[in-house]
This record gives sequence, structure tokens and C-alpha cells, in this order.
Amino acid sequence: MAQRRVTFLPDRRSSLFDEGVSLRDAALELGIVIESSCAGIGTCGECRIEVAEGATPPTTTELDLLTPDELKRGIRLSCQAQVQSDCTCTILPESRVAGDQILEHGLTSEFRLDPDCTKFPLDVPPPRLGQKYFDLEALLAAVSGQRAAVSVQPSLNLIRRIPSVLRASNHKVTAVVDRDRLLAIEPGDTSACLYGLALDIGTTTVVAKLMDLRTGEVRAVSSALNAQEAYGADVITRTKYLIEHEGGLDLLHRLIIEQINRLTEDLCNKAGMRSSDIYTAVLVGNTIMQHLAVGVDPRHLAAAPYTPAFQGPATIQAAEIGLTINEAGSVYFLPNLACFVGSDITAVLTTLHLESSDEPQLVIDIGTNGEMVLGSKHGLYCCSSPAGPAWEGATISWGMRAAHGAIERIDLADGQLAFRTIGSLAPLGICGSGLMDLLALLVRAGIVDSTGRLLGADEVVNGPGLRLADRILPNRERGPSFRVAEASEGKWIELTQRDVRELQLAKSAIASAINILLKERGLTPSDVSRVYIAGAFGNHIRGQDAVDIGLLPGIPVERIHFIGNAAVAGAEAVICSRQARRKAEALAGMIEYVELAGRQDFQDEFSAALLFPEAAVE
Amino acid sequence: MAQRRVTFLPDRRSSLFDEGVSLRDAALELGIVIESSCAGIGTCGECRIEVAEGATPPTTTELDLLTPDELKRGIRLSCQAQVQSDCTCTILPESRVAGDQILEHGLTSEFRLDPDCTKFPLDVPPPRLGQKYFDLEALLAAVSGQRAAVSVQPSLNLIRRIPSVLRASNHKVTAVVDRDRLLAIEPGDTSACLYGLALDIGTTTVVAKLMDLRTGEVRAVSSALNAQEAYGADVITRTKYLIEHEGGLDLLHRLIIEQINRLTEDLCNKAGMRSSDIYTAVLVGNTIMQHLAVGVDPRHLAAAPYTPAFQGPATIQAAEIGLTINEAGSVYFLPNLACFVGSDITAVLTTLHLESSDEPQLVIDIGTNGEMVLGSKHGLYCCSSPAGPAWEGATISWGMRAAHGAIERIDLADGQLAFRTIGSLAPLGICGSGLMDLLALLVRAGIVDSTGRLLGADEVVNGPGLRLADRILPNRERGPSFRVAEASEGKWIELTQRDVRELQLAKSAIASAINILLKERGLTPSDVSRVYIAGAFGNHIRGQDAVDIGLLPGIPVERIHFIGNAAVAGAEAVICSRQARRKAEALAGMIEYVELAGRQDFQDEFSAALLFPEAAVE
Repeated sequence: MAQRRVTFLPDRRSSLFDEGVSLRDAALELGIVIESSCAGIGTCGECRIEVAEGATPPTTTELDLLTPDELKRGIRLSCQAQVQSDCTCTILPESRVAGDQILEHGLTSEFRLDPDCTKFPLDVPPPRLGQKYFDLEALLAAVSGQRAAVSVQPSLNLIRRIPSVLRASNHKVTAVVDRDRLLAIEPGDTSACLYGLALDIGTTTVVAKLMDLRTGEVRAVSSALNAQEAYGADVITRTKYLIEHEGGLDLLHRLIIEQINRLTEDLCNKAGMRSSDIYTAVLVGNTIMQHLAVGVDPRHLAAAPYTPAFQGPATIQAAEIGLTINEAGSVYFLPNLACFVGSDITAVLTTLHLESSDEPQLVIDIGTNGEMVLGSKHGLYCCSSPAGPAWEGATISWGMRAAHGAIERIDLADGQLAFRTIGSLAPLGICGSGLMDLLALLVRAGIVDSTGRLLGADEVVNGPGLRLADRILPNRERGPSFRVAEASEGKWIELTQRDVRELQLAKSAIASAINILLKERGLTPSDVSRVYIAGAFGNHIRGQDAVDIGLLPGIPVERIHFIGNAAVAGAEAVICSRQARRKAEALAGMIEYVELAGRQDFQDEFSAALLFPEAAVE
Repeated sequence: MAQRRVTFLPDRRSSLFDEGVSLRDAALELGIVIESSCAGIGTCGECRIEVAEGATPPTTTELDLLTPDELKRGIRLSCQAQVQSDCTCTILPESRVAGDQILEHGLTSEFRLDPDCTKFPLDVPPPRLGQKYFDLEALLAAVSGQRAAVSVQPSLNLIRRIPSVLRASNHKVTAVVDRDRLLAIEPGDTSACLYGLALDIGTTTVVAKLMDLRTGEVRAVSSALNAQEAYGADVITRTKYLIEHEGGLDLLHRLIIEQINRLTEDLCNKAGMRSSDIYTAVLVGNTIMQHLAVGVDPRHLAAAPYTPAFQGPATIQAAEIGLTINEAGSVYFLPNLACFVGSDITAVLTTLHLESSDEPQLVIDIGTNGEMVLGSKHGLYCCSSPAGPAWEGATISWGMRAAHGAIERIDLADGQLAFRTIGSLAPLGICGSGLMDLLALLVRAGIVDSTGRLLGADEVVNGPGLRLADRILPNRERGPSFRVAEASEGKWIELTQRDVRELQLAKSAIASAINILLKERGLTPSDVSRVYIAGAFGNHIRGQDAVDIGLLPGIPVERIHFIGNAAVAGAEAVICSRQARRKAEALAGMIEYVELAGRQDFQDEFSAALLFPEAAVE
């Protein structure tokens, strides 16, 4: 499929995207979260942007939701407008997700563009006879003349190369400096060309962004499913694999490194540059993914007392772990926060302001593991809770990844069930956002009661559920089930009683963790002024659903903010700004860890959080 | 040959030596220079030591030169007494070379025993459930509790190993710290075992000493001819080789590293320990040897403006250059001073006190290149002069290395020529010290005139030379020659006119450099309060000879002190004491370089210094 360049203003973020991608999804890929309470289904009309050129013509939805005057001014709904050719558009201030400075104002206004990795064109004075002159020291003196901090001895490789590079370039070179270390010198003035990689290594997905460190712009984005998938859907299974298989650690390490290398190659192709122009990478991820990326055995994380090998921050030479950026490049690993609260959460916090907030704020990243941070200027507290992979579609009868054919939206339209699949294809299964829509719908309709029991068709006697009752069928193996849609071959996509139980356990893991964090600090849900939902899953769910199923117990829906892949946004900030990096490091030092497994009250809280809130009649 | 342990008190220096080695030579090997104006020939009676046990019985020379009372007290001449069994002896204060604090009082009284590389036994608190705990950071905190300076991130290898070592040792480990870096951890308490290598890489000879860093003692000594020899006798020839041969740099680098590895193995065998117990090495050498040891191309040193690739100090991971000490160990390269004034001279200066002296002092290291430093508390000035290999026996008709069969001493006894060979074997040739004896003798006898001309037999008409005149023969190819001794097969070992010219050029290179240094500072030879002669060659020559041939122009002979291999002594000091290391680094910063090649007056000085002083009639 043809790729087109999409540029978002005023952020000046830009990358190549396939034709047909919605501008909302393109913006999300680039870390820009656009307000939309319908999560992109085309009903709320909130995700407005101004398109100068390059998008598909307005849809009927847009004709309904936008005024003729707006349409004339080029205002579009970003969930409807798709990439058609090279495209430039402007995010309207009112469409920005509120409260997040980075996302509101763009990176460079929040953090000064001041990367650790920089280049200095130099005229190194050549040696003269009779002078006390040494190539290395003359070069270091010239670098120090630009910036005083180069205190670490350069690598042996560099020491070996300096004499010939200086002479081949007539002593006109460009120094590549990463913090206190001279990484490399290049002949001539190459200071216009300096790139970095922002990497978010998720258990499921790996996201890589190519950052232009001279401007702070995203030059390209690439992502892929984690290649370790074949060795376990979650981190514990993969850790088990490496414990039980000799060479398993090396294998998992190599898989993730090779994957990053493929993404890097893709980014360089998109941006038309060489990987040797990349001298730095910032990598974030959960603790186990970080261990595997560094090649450190995570086995002691898999059993109590759940001990990571390192917290970090750590700087590793790219060549040491086989990353094919410049051979002299280095990779910065953000610090982890606690055993299962990894550097991805550190990165998320870097983009927010919990540590300076008067009122308590809550950050939640929902994945197979749910991590959350409760904090204000009075302190930061984190915990993690094993939610399991139900929200990723695993363990659910018709569950599936958010891929083509997945039902991602389910709603009532005129009392009838309506759904939408990814790619508008025939339905193949239900992904996480669809499952949450469906569960919330069933709870509101009274078809799932507060204990999580899926009523029989004959038990639904009144209320909004009545018109859906005929979809409930007895199911031989898994108790009653609720039919959603007809799949190919005449089979029905359905949600079974056991599926409801899986989702119930998953939501209770999150909800009970939230409750314990609050209790620990003597707070109630209503004390929380803002809730930030981070992560890819958070991009596609609706706040009201999360409240209605009790995933976010007692949180007023208007306080919920979806911040998308804030982990990679944090990595972008850190690679572009020393200020952001220092903030990340400071956050790691100030956060306290609340362990759930060791608590007497965890089981009680967990049981209580299994209940669904009393049905809010629709 | 059987090896015996020889221990010198009060220095507590000890090593294994072959039976039959003189105690003076054993002391020299261990860096202890014993006063002896006859340079070990057994005539001055100055090199007295007290022997408790283990030496051969007194010789007739000792019976002549020592009183019965002295003999009763165990006083011996160290040039006469030889190793017979395990042997302990005490250096008498009056036999120490004066003015050198290290050599007078032993290492630990000059520099505090306080090595950069240290070990700390630790009880690392184990993790508890619910604690924010990371293996690496817990370990680093425990190390910092011992000594606060561990600020550099440990190697990736160590980060990977820490979790298993901690658990295998029940969290009782020993941390190996080198300055600001945690090098390794070992299970249990291994703090009693910590060794380092002091290395002096000469163009001709490589010396390695195994240092016990817990006591500052020399545990073993090993040395060998530089294995690069086959690729050139001097540094310029070897550099030329690597310029002209692809892979030449790698070859020369590998040769020297493999040689250090063989010496290390030998040291470990002698001391009965493993090379993995060695975590640190301090390496000194001339600039080109240092380049080759690091694997850095020295080609830009071989042509004007003679530019080294680096000055240093530099710390290189042992594994990076292939040294087979502990794989986590590091090698510290002392800073070089100038293009041809290497870190060996820095090490020599570290053992002296030029920088705090009121009066100017002069240090000279005579090798194929002569390096010298003139200094006082008012400033330090260095230069180097290409003396050539004549004093090592090269370019001389019957010249040879100081090996078995070499004539090392030549004297007049009752007006007749007398000589001694190394190992008391039949003479094979003449080594440097013998050449200097001979040249001085011929100058004093008037057989070589002040211009360097070797007189014909008929030209010697009076004076002490008369009784030697019959040894002068016309020589077809090389002008007149002077017969020294009959070699095997009826051939005569002789010194030719051309040989005299070679030695004359070599001495003038040194002498003119001294004169220029003095002139540069507005001094005359008589202003110099002390002259230190360093290097292996310096161990075997006599001050009076050096003055009589004008190698040390106008320097009163009583101001000359021979300090032996002070370069390796400096390396020993640096590996045992941070104070010594800091002194070495400070010296490198304060010294100024005087380039001879660029000077208008060098040729004049050189020509003037070719002359021999007017013959001092014997």
C-alpha cells in the first residue's frame, strides 16, 4: 500500500502512513491524543482537526456533525478523515486531551529541546613541531571548549580511530557527545544530521520512533508485535520458558534486539537515512522486557520476593547488545520503579505532573499487568496487579487481538445491538475495547447482574435488556452465552458466562489495586482529581464503560483522561531533553512501592471489587 | 635451575631467583638499588648488606674488603654473595643509593599503601517481599557504605552476573573496586587475595612484577626480551614495519600482549596463584611501546611533527586488549610526557622529587632513545634525543647484548687490560657497560684523542697508553682497531675506529641534549645538584666513565646516582598507592617539552659534544 507523509501542526510531528489510515490513528501513532468521548466511533463529534490538504472527502457522519461553515474552513473529524496523499493538518486546541502539558503544547514547550546526545563541529588545532601535543587530548580540549562536561574516557575504538580521522579531514571534524562521553568523531561538519530512537518495548507490541534531535520532530514511526510472542503471551510465561530451556535467555534477548533492528531499518527507509546516523536510543518497557532487552536474566522477578536485577538508569553500548545503530552509539534505559512497575511507567509519569499536583492524581496502565501510580506533591505511590490477558482477548472464547475483523465497538442503536469491526470487515472475534463495550452494555441492561451472573433469557423480564434477551442462549460447556454477531460459516460470536468471569477477575485486579492504593493513603475515589489511562488499550475504551463495570470504582467519568501511548511519548521527551531525563530519574527516586501480594486485606478488597456496580438503567 | 626465595628487609620485598644469582642483582630486580661505585665488579666494597641465611660463603674479595668483625656480624658484599638457598637479608642504610626516598625507605613509607584497586567483603542485605529492591542497586549501596566513590556504572557482564552470584553466596560477597568502578564480585570473603601487575614495556626488555596489593610486596618478578624484536631493534624500525605491512599493527600489538600474558603466567607459577586473582595492571613504557600495547597506530610519531595518538592516563579493560588477568580487570596506562618522552619517564619521576627540589636535578634514561628531564620546584623540562642502539651493542663490530659471554667490565689491573664476562664464560663480544669501560679507558689512556680518533700503535709515545699500544692494529675495513680479548677460534674481539665513531655519536646525542636543556634554563652543568641515571644500562656503568667520555658533560661524579629500573619501581608505586598515581598524573601536567629537532643551535651543540674531554691521565 502506498505511503504518504502526514504532518501535524503545531507539533510539527510527521511520519509516513498507509493510505486509508484515519488521521486520528495517525495522530495517536505520533503521540498526539485527540479528545473523543466515543473513542473514534464517529458519534461524539469531538475529535476536530483542521486539514489543509491530503485527506479523503467528508463522510456523511461529518456532514451530520459539522456545520457548513466548519466544513468550509477545513474542519474535519479526525476519526473520519483518512490519509489520501501527503497531508498536513492542525490539531485544534479544544481537541487536545486536557491536562497534559506535553500533549497540549507539544514537546518543546514543556521540556527545553536540549538532548543529551549532541554534535559539535570542530576545528581542532593541528600539531606543530616542538609542541606538547597529543591527538586525543587536543580533540578533547576542542570539545571541552564547546561544552565542558566530557569527562569520561572515550572508547578504545575511538582512541584508535582519532589520528586517521583527524588527518583525513584536515582536522575539521564533528564530535558526537552523549552526556559526559565523546562517542565518535565524523569527518567534516555533520552537525545537521543527528537522530535518536525512542523505543517502547511492550510485552505485546514494540513501538519505535525516529527522532530528529536537532528539531525534536518525530521523523518516522514503526511498530510490530513483540517477536517473543511465540514463547509466551505474558512475561511470566516467557520467564518460565527461559528458566526451563538452556539458551532461552539468549534466544529471547536476540529476538527482541533483532526486532528493534528491523524496526530501525524500517524507520531509516521511511526517513531516507542511514542507521549509522543514529547515535542514541532511549528504551522503556516493563521490568521483564527491559531485562530481556539488556540480556539480563529476569528469573528472580518470577517468584517471591520478585527481585529485578537492576533498577537503572543504565547506559549500555549499543554494540554490546547488538543494536545496529551507529556502532559507537549508546542506549539509555530509564529507571524502573519497582519489581513489576517498569520504566514505561516512569516514562508516562515524566509526561505528567503528579509530583507537583495539589490534589491526588491517578495513572493507570492496563495491560496483562496493571500498573498504577497514585500521587500528588505529598508523595508518589505505585503498585502493580496481575490483570491477566483477558482484556487483550486471550482466555475469552471469541476474544482476539485488535486486528482486522475484530469487533472493536459495540453499542445500542435504537435498542438494538450495533457493532463495528476494524477495517469494516466481516467479524472474526472481539477485541478488548469491544469486550468492554459489551460487558458494560450487558451490566447496564441488567443481563449481567452485580455478581457477574449472566441471566438466562427467561430471567430478563423488564428493562433495556428485554430487547436483547433473545440473544441469550444456554451453552453446553460454558454456561449461558450472549450472541453478538454471526461469524463466517454460520457460527455465532458470543460471550459466555465463563468469559464474563474472566473479565470480572481482570477488572477486579485493577479495581482492588486502586482501592488499596487509596486506602493506603487514606483517600476515597472522589478525592482523586484526575485519572489518566495510558497504554494502547486505553486509547480505545470509553470512560463511562470503565466506570459502569467498576474498573474505575467510584471515579466520576469526567475526571478520566486517555493519554494514549504516553510511555513512548516519555521516551521521546527524554531523548530530546536533559530536563525530561532528569525528571524521570528524580521520579524513580521519590516513588514508594506498595506490594499487594503481601497484604492481609488484598483478598477482601479483591472479592469486593469483583461485584459490578448496580445497573445504571439506560 | 632450582629457584630460591630471596627476601629483602626492611622493604619486605621478596621473589624467587635462580641459585647463583648475586644478591645485588636480585635486589636490583626487585627495584632496590645498592650503592656501588664499581658497578658490581667487587673493588669498591660499598654494596654491603647483612645476610641472615641462605647465601654462598664469603669470597676472597670479601675477606679483603670486610673486617673480621663485619664478617662475624653477617655483613657481606652483595655483588659477591650469591643465592644458595632461601635467603633473607637486610639492606644497610649506608648502602642505599642516597637521595631517593622510595629506595631508601621502601615503598610504603614514601607513599601510603592505598591502592586504587581494593576489595571489600560485604554482607548485602537480601530482598524482602514488598521492598523496593534491586540486586545491582542493593550491592552498590553496600559498596558505597564501605567507600563512597563507586560512581561509574558497572560493566554489562557484571550486571548480568550479580543476581546469581548474590544468591549462590547467600549474599556474602567480596566487591572488587577499582577507583570509581565496581569491577567484579566474588562469592564469600576473598579480600585476603588481591594482586596487581607492574609492567615496564621497553623496546628491548619487558619486565613484569607481581604485586601483593594487600601488603605492597613484590611477590615475583619476570622479564624477557621484547618479542617484537624480530620486526626491528628500535621503535622507528618497528613503526616503519607496521606502516609497510598490512596487519603489522595487529601483529606487533598481539606480540607484546602475548608476551605479557606469558610473563603473567610465569609470575603466577612462581607465586603459586591464579591469574584471575589479578584485577589490575599498571603499564609504563616509551610512547611507541605504549601505543603498541594499547593497539593504537603510532605512525604519526614516526615523522614530524611526531604526534602521539594519546597522552593518557588511560584505563583500558584488560579483556579489550587481550590481557589474561581477570576478565573484569583493567589496565592503567600512566600518562606520557611528550612525543618521545613516555610514561616510563613519568614513572621514574614519580619515584624522585625533582618537582620539590630547590636545586636543579637531572634525570637521564639511556636507551636507544635518550630521554631526560631537568627540573626543580621552579619547573620541569624534558627532551629526548635519538642516541641509537650503540650502547646496546648494535652497530658495534663486536657489540652484543648483556647476555652470557658478554664482556661487561674492562679495567686496568697493574697497567694491564683485565675483563670480566657475564657468567664468567669465554668472551663472545662486548655489551654496553663493557663498551663504556673500554671507551673511557682508551680516552684516559690517550689512545682515543679528544676528536675521537683512535691512534695508531706508533702514535702512542708516552703515558698510560704505552703498555696497551701493542693491542692497536691496523684494520682493513674500519680503520685502526683495539684488540680486547681473544674470542674462540683464534679471532680477536676488538673495537674499531668506526665503532668509536658510533659510540661518539651516541654519547653526543645525550650530551648535547643535556646541554640544550641546561642552556634553555640558563644553567651550567655545575648548577645541577643531582643526576639520576635510570634504566637497565645505568645499572652497569660507572659514573667516572660517563664523565670521562663526556656523556655527562661537566657533571661532578659524586653527584651521579644510579637508580636502576626506576620505571618499573614507579609502576609499583602507582599500583600500590593512589597518592603515587596522583603524583604521576600531576607531573604529566606540569612538565614542559623542549624539542631538539626544531632548534637552530642543536647541530652546533651536537658537534661540540662529539669531542671527548681532555684525557684525565690515570
